[in-house]
Amino acid sequence: MEAFSDAVFAIAITLLVLDIAVHPPGTPLEQVLHAWPAYVAYVVSFLTIGAAWLAHDGLTDRLGRSDAIFLRLNLLLLLVVAFLPFPTRLVADALQQHTDAERVAVTFYGLTLLAIRLLGSGLAEYARREHLYSPPKEGEEPPGAQQKLLSVVVGYVLAIIIGLLWPTVAVAVYFAIAVYLVVPFREVARLLFRRS
Amino acid sequence: MEAFSDAVFAIAITLLVLDIAVHPPGTPLEQVLHAWPAYVAYVVSFLTIGAAWLAHDGLTDRLGRSDAIFLRLNLLLLLVVAFLPFPTRLVADALQQHTDAERVAVTFYGLTLLAIRLLGSGLAEYARREHLYSPPKEGEEPPGAQQKLLSVVVGYVLAIIIGLLWPTVAVAVYFAIAVYLVVPFREVARLLFRRS
Amino acid sequence: MEAFSDAVFAIAITLLVLDIAVHPPGTPLEQVLHAWPAYVAYVVSFLTIGAAWLAHDGLTDRLGRSDAIFLRLNLLLLLVVAFLPFPTRLVADALQQHTDAERVAVTFYGLTLLAIRLLGSGLAEYARREHLYSPPKEGEEPPGAQQKLLSVVVGYVLAIIIGLLWPTVAVAVYFAIAVYLVVPFREVARLLFRRS
Amino acid sequence: MEAFSDAVFAIAITLLVLDIAVHPPGTPLEQVLHAWPAYVAYVVSFLTIGAAWLAHDGLTDRLGRSDAIFLRLNLLLLLVVAFLPFPTRLVADALQQHTDAERVAVTFYGLTLLAIRLLGSGLAEYARREHLYSPPKEGEEPPGAQQKLLSVVVGYVLAIIIGLLWPTVAVAVYFAIAVYLVVPFREVARLLFRRS
Repeated sequence: MEAFSDAVFAIAITLLVLDIAVHPPGTPLEQVLHAWPAYVAYVVSFLTIGAAWLAHDGLTDRLGRSDAIFLRLNLLLLLVVAFLPFPTRLVADALQQHTDAERVAVTFYGLTLLAIRLLGSGLAEYARREHLYSPPKEGEEPPGAQQKLLSVVVGYVLAIIIGLLWPTVAVAVYFAIAVYLVVPFREVARLLFRRS
Repeated sequence: MEAFSDAVFAIAITLLVLDIAVHPPGTPLEQVLHAWPAYVAYVVSFLTIGAAWLAHDGLTDRLGRSDAIFLRLNLLLLLVVAFLPFPTRLVADALQQHTDAERVAVTFYGLTLLAIRLLGSGLAEYARREHLYSPPKEGEEPPGAQQKLLSVVVGYVLAIIIGLLWPTVAVAVYFAIAVYLVVPFREVARLLFRRS
Repeated sequence: MEAFSDAVFAIAITLLVLDIAVHPPGTPLEQVLHAWPAYVAYVVSFLTIGAAWLAHDGLTDRLGRSDAIFLRLNLLLLLVVAFLPFPTRLVADALQQHTDAERVAVTFYGLTLLAIRLLGSGLAEYARREHLYSPPKEGEEPPGAQQKLLSVVVGYVLAIIIGLLWPTVAVAVYFAIAVYLVVPFREVARLLFRRS
Repeated sequence: MEAFSDAVFAIAITLLVLDIAVHPPGTPLEQVLHAWPAYVAYVVSFLTIGAAWLAHDGLTDRLGRSDAIFLRLNLLLLLVVAFLPFPTRLVADALQQHTDAERVAVTFYGLTLLAIRLLGSGLAEYARREHLYSPPKEGEEPPGAQQKLLSVVVGYVLAIIIGLLWPTVAVAVYFAIAVYLVVPFREVARLLFRRS
């Protein structure tokens, strides 16, 4: 199960690059620069899938056993993760070509990001309730409540609403949330203070 | 063998997203909504490959050894699984563009789904006859007859016939079969009754 | 090394499906049927990569250690395996559209198939000469000479020459070689005689 | 972590083939020959990712443990590795169609190659500073300074500057660097002298 899930995360994250494209008109340099929404969408989706994978990896590491329902919930999560390249492509195309498709694409994108987060949390919650985790080892923290969950869900919902009016702002918020999900602030702080 | 098979299942399931596309005409929202056949085809193929992978994973877990013929039968199964994105694309395009290609595409799709199921069952049957399974552990059920096989094959054959007249109905049946294959009814029932 | 190689084989074999496409003109059924060269090319390439993977898997299983040069030779093999989807696409397109590109495409394809076989054999030969294999276990055959190698190389060279005149015949020969590489005749014979 | 990283490297290296395409005008043979920039770009990118993977594989093999920051730095490296197929496609298209996009594409490509190298080295440096390596075994060399790093970085920077004037020359330099990164000169020399 872990190898299969890892592979789906890895493939989905790598397929994102296929949706980056430059479009006329403009000089070659302008075309490459005007493709910035495609780069931003690539980075946001990459970091979001990366964060989902980090959480999933932490989850499966602590897992003592799995059951039939867990495997299927996991499949559902993978279904949405593997789907993300499609709304990513919609966002990249819409922002790049300044069409009026921006609002639709960004909203669709935000809903997919939210679904990934909720399904990932649901999976962890199911594992906790059904006691699928192996007992924490000496010195290890037990799998606690998911601290970042509430703030992230609120962030996504706000960004989806904002995106109905200002799609570009919503993409910036999605970027911020992805960074927030990936960066381990405590560890970075520890590292910085130790150094100084 | 298991790592390679897992990877092929994972890649085939993730490549499905590349075949989703929106097409003019219409407003952006209409285009995204009119692409529903692509979403349905994505979900049906994803769940069908997912179910085939779950069965394959259960099979390889119980496998004590493999032989040369088993490896080749497995390769044949992978050949058809890795092929599925193509008829999936045909179905998505045909239903989306209301062309008269619907019947051909849906029939082709159904035959591929049926082939995946038959080859998967054939592989399990070969393993059983050649005694490739390791002896079941204490408390484990021996690899029994494949309970869902007959009903699923009958379902596919009926759907293929139905699809010659009403392609959309056949797709609905394929969706129902995929859900039936993936959902572990006994476990869900157990969970629900325990809760109430 | 093994996981990485397995993944490249698995991805190359699965990407082949992306190159299958139907083309106008014709009724939907005619289009699907006229795409037969794409199906044939898919099957030939799938079986050829499958055979290369089976040989590679057998090789890495017996490997006791690897060295820096082995890793690089392996990378070279993967470079050509991962390249195969491109000539496969050329062949499928050329045969399907009856263009005069057939001869060029089929020759290019044959050279790639030959390169895969030679590099795979070279890798096994290097491992044998450098004593990278672990000692064979009780009852195991030592890694012998590669029995099918000479006949296969001769077959490829003949097919490449034939393909300069009759491209379709060459494709049939590539198909026959792929089947010959994959089918374990001795085991099948043993199975059949035991049954009867 | 290792399985996921291996998979991303493997997928990125295999997706490169999708960007190879022939373009009119010309006879079929001319088209296949005129696509040489696509083949060169494929080989350079393949070898560069291959070299990055070899370094990464060596790194993770010696790793005793990892920490949260290491995982994120690794994700950043994968983000750029998985991005490489895009500038590769730009280079292949620009050189093949003799457009004035050559300089932009080659510069973009060079910057991506440089980023992969710097991030890979940064990752190894972080592991060294944070003592993530397991103690070297008897007879094993400790993870030393990265000998090829300085020369490679200087080579990339020079090639990027050269590419502003002569893009094709820069691509030749990237090819040379990739070969330099992949070929294990000491081992090859040892092999040759032993033989003679």
